Amino acid sequence: MTIVDIASPLIEIAQKTRSSASKLAVLSTEAKNQAIEAIAQALESARDDILQANIADCEAATADGIAKPLYKRLQLDEHKLRDAIAGVRDVGKLADPVGKVQIHREIDTGLILKRITCPLGVLGIIFEARPEAAIQIVSLAIKSGNGVILKGGKEAIRSCEAIVKAIKQGLSHTAVNPDVVQLLTTREQTIELLQLDKYVDLIIPRGSNSFVRFVQDNTRIPVLGHADGICHLYIDKGADIAKAVTIAVDAKTQYPAACNAIETLLVHASIAADYLPQLAAAMQANHVELRGDERTAKILHHLTAATAQDWETEYSDLILAIKIVDSIEDAIAHINEYGSRHTEAIVTEDLAAAETFLGLVNAAGVYHNCSTRFADGFRYGFGAEVGISTQQMPPRGPVGLEGLVTYKYQMIGDGHIVASYTGANAKSFTHRDLI
Amino acid sequence: MTIVDIASPLIEIAQKTRSSASKLAVLSTEAKNQAIEAIAQALESARDDILQANIADCEAATADGIAKPLYKRLQLDEHKLRDAIAGVRDVGKLADPVGKVQIHREIDTGLILKRITCPLGVLGIIFEARPEAAIQIVSLAIKSGNGVILKGGKEAIRSCEAIVKAIKQGLSHTAVNPDVVQLLTTREQTIELLQLDKYVDLIIPRGSNSFVRFVQDNTRIPVLGHADGICHLYIDKGADIAKAVTIAVDAKTQYPAACNAIETLLVHASIAADYLPQLAAAMQANHVELRGDERTAKILHHLTAATAQDWETEYSDLILAIKIVDSIEDAIAHINEYGSRHTEAIVTEDLAAAETFLGLVNAAGVYHNCSTRFADGFRYGFGAEVGISTQQMPPRGPVGLEGLVTYKYQMIGDGHIVASYTGANAKSFTHRDLI
Repeated sequence: MTIVDIASPLIEIAQKTRSSASKLAVLSTEAKNQAIEAIAQALESARDDILQANIADCEAATADGIAKPLYKRLQLDEHKLRDAIAGVRDVGKLADPVGKVQIHREIDTGLILKRITCPLGVLGIIFEARPEAAIQIVSLAIKSGNGVILKGGKEAIRSCEAIVKAIKQGLSHTAVNPDVVQLLTTREQTIELLQLDKYVDLIIPRGSNSFVRFVQDNTRIPVLGHADGICHLYIDKGADIAKAVTIAVDAKTQYPAACNAIETLLVHASIAADYLPQLAAAMQANHVELRGDERTAKILHHLTAATAQDWETEYSDLILAIKIVDSIEDAIAHINEYGSRHTEAIVTEDLAAAETFLGLVNAAGVYHNCSTRFADGFRYGFGAEVGISTQQMPPRGPVGLEGLVTYKYQMIGDGHIVASYTGANAKSFTHRDLI
Repeated sequence: MTIVDIASPLIEIAQKTRSSASKLAVLSTEAKNQAIEAIAQALESARDDILQANIADCEAATADGIAKPLYKRLQLDEHKLRDAIAGVRDVGKLADPVGKVQIHREIDTGLILKRITCPLGVLGIIFEARPEAAIQIVSLAIKSGNGVILKGGKEAIRSCEAIVKAIKQGLSHTAVNPDVVQLLTTREQTIELLQLDKYVDLIIPRGSNSFVRFVQDNTRIPVLGHADGICHLYIDKGADIAKAVTIAVDAKTQYPAACNAIETLLVHASIAADYLPQLAAAMQANHVELRGDERTAKILHHLTAATAQDWETEYSDLILAIKIVDSIEDAIAHINEYGSRHTEAIVTEDLAAAETFLGLVNAAGVYHNCSTRFADGFRYGFGAEVGISTQQMPPRGPVGLEGLVTYKYQMIGDGHIVASYTGANAKSFTHRDLI
């Protein structure tokens, strides 16, 4: 399946990363933390170079007529850089996800099984034109014992080069080989990277929904991330109306571009006439455009009509679709049909209804009486977030450092063979847990 | 991406399975165990029908000139059926993998986060012509709260139909809707099944390496399993020669068709002249054909020469390739290049060498002084095995019931919103673990 020419320099880069990462994988926590501190210091020393490179990136982007929100992301001032370096030191303080013993079991006398966490190997991380993302990603990769191949947005190329140069400079005085960090610079390399399933163990794409979907559809490497974030808030007939208004406003407006903001509000028919006018007043005060199905339009006039298309749209904007449902079962069915399995919430004082909702809704996060905007690795207390996954298999939801490790089974014996446990005089296994 | 016609009956089958599985997902352990016992009793009652159906399958297969090993797998006598029914009751006794609380954390006063295991949803299981596999699979699916769409080998079609009929009959008197179990009968349906990523959460293919690879290459649904099982045994310079002979014989001959049997033996140059003649004598006594590289041929005469092709071949037979290496680093490099990340072992009395090997070899199982044949869910003490995965991400290695569940984050508040935790008067998170 690999279509990359064996002579390609990218394969060589990937092999070099893999080889140096295998040594990083077995380093002590202390050695990794020393490397992380060395990165922080090197970034501090290279501050002027990095900021100057960023000014050049910003000038070039301005000449190309970059959109204002993108420009703001691209821009790296002294303050942002200082925060990013503080973030590196925070990663140093996180618990080491490698070397955790998950299973420790005696299989028979003298035959011991352990399941121990270990790094994945090499991460491929493709991110948008936000230079400080490179700093965060590298520190998380090294803390988790992984090599990392970075590809930043093309507008940030000078900034990323200055940052990676400083990082490699910092690592050169540590136990970590600077080859564990690589920076790609062309779009062609991104496409090639997706083919390198022999050398890259996980792809984390950060960017637009369509970009993430492109990555998911064009690689055999596991992808951590999510394309859509279509989240719902269901206002049950047993809802406290004040809470239902407050939570809806937060979930829609606190940061509408976030993947955990709601797109559709489902309202039980028996509470709709009381609730919807209050909701509409609050949403209008927050400049939210409301769209609704026919039944909603009978309560809230002058609405844009919601079509089937609305139920499957992530607006990422101050727009909210509203649908009236006749039962909690209808709400759950709508969510399981149109939701992207990200985060789904119910507002109700009826505990049985809440339990039904949390049990039957299929999503990484199922919430009761709180805003969907809590779905985030930092808010969950993970200390860092490497992505949010909407897949069914773990890791799912907001993923912290533990998403960058896997495990190995280690078995240690003293000449033990399987033949001893079969046949007429078969020995028995003891299967005695030691932790 | 789905190319299946929306009017296809298979889509309807899958939707029905999914819908009934969502109710199974929230049943108590007791209700699931009652259903499992009902299946055991129904299979006992239908014993004669099942055995008769199997006789018809066997007669048809004989007429078609089925190979002897396949015939033995297809044949289901009273004894095999009784064992399979006992296996159902054993699954009933296993711990419920659903509902385990992995994280229980106070995020702030009154805002509680839990991570709880839950079923995946619907499993698609494609197995060879071994009818009792259907019995084991269904009981594991129900125990883990999942719906299951089965496709058995075409030679076993009458047997599987009789088995599934009995299972559905048994379930009809329980809290579990018989629709959670479905049987497909045609090859075309298998191809269609692989397209149903909206309705099927995990595919478990059992069968030949090429079939598993076909499945992996033709579905977006996660696949649990492995194509190749190319395992190595490395005899280090610090090996105890007697142990090295015994372990090699067990790992090669105890069940050569198993995926965890070794294909290649790597021997350190400094011990080869002592070790290889003893190994060859033991292997010849067990009718093993030896192949070797040039250096091996200088010690063991009249060998078949091993070519590069041998290093990447799973013989699944009494054939062993031998290569002499100059260092443990060379052995590890060979394994990381040619191994299928299944199970890899070292024989040595040198603990530092063992530690290096266990740390640097990239495989689901890394063993010291024991046979690779221990890589198995029952031997690990999992009580059941749903497959062995050679992927890098968890679940990895032999997978028990825990491989059939995922998790959800549940967040319960009392009107909590994210806006309270931002800005000038931001509240702080407590992040206090409650377990």
